[in-house]
Amino acid sequence: MRIKEFQSLIRELYQSRDALRGPDRTFLWFLEEVGELTRAYRRGEAENLAQEMADVFAWLASVANLLEIDLESAVGQKYPKLCPLCSTNPCSCPLR
Amino acid sequence: MRIKEFQSLIRELYQSRDALRGPDRTFLWFLEEVGELTRAYRRGEAENLAQEMADVFAWLASVANLLEIDLESAVGQKYPKLCPLCSTNPCSCPLR
Repeated sequence: MRIKEFQSLIRELYQSRDALRGPDRTFLWFLEEVGELTRAYRRGEAENLAQEMADVFAWLASVANLLEIDLESAVGQKYPKLCPLCSTNPCSCPLR
Repeated sequence: MRIKEFQSLIRELYQSRDALRGPDRTFLWFLEEVGELTRAYRRGEAENLAQEMADVFAWLASVANLLEIDLESAVGQKYPKLCPLCSTNPCSCPLR
């Protein structure tokens, strides 16, 4: 599935509700999902991790929809097959 | 670009470094990027928001790579064209 398709699916499923809730409270939902992913990671809940990652991505898409940001374009511009900092592939930045 | 392709690109660019850093510290980087996105959102930095969203997605992909989670499959399983809670499209859950 393309990034763009996933963002469209989330728009189709949730846009009217996201718009009613508004961007601030939708952003808070995204952060809540980040918290749930963090908990699943900390607890080593292997089965849950994939689902929580899907939820984080879905709420990121909801926020992006409300802010009219195209995630596929954003990703293509920031990561054009090269590390955005050192411009090599693989990255050769100092390890951090 | 497919979700799978983006995850592969991040693997190609960063996997050896992510593995050296390890999953705990890579997860902390992901959370740092979530913080940067939150700051850009709070400040209304329109130009920065798309880049920060790309970074959050990239670090989510790094964590997924280390944990051997396929984001595209995770998303397809959790969001099979229907809301996972009410099983309709568009979602008809009570507004939250």
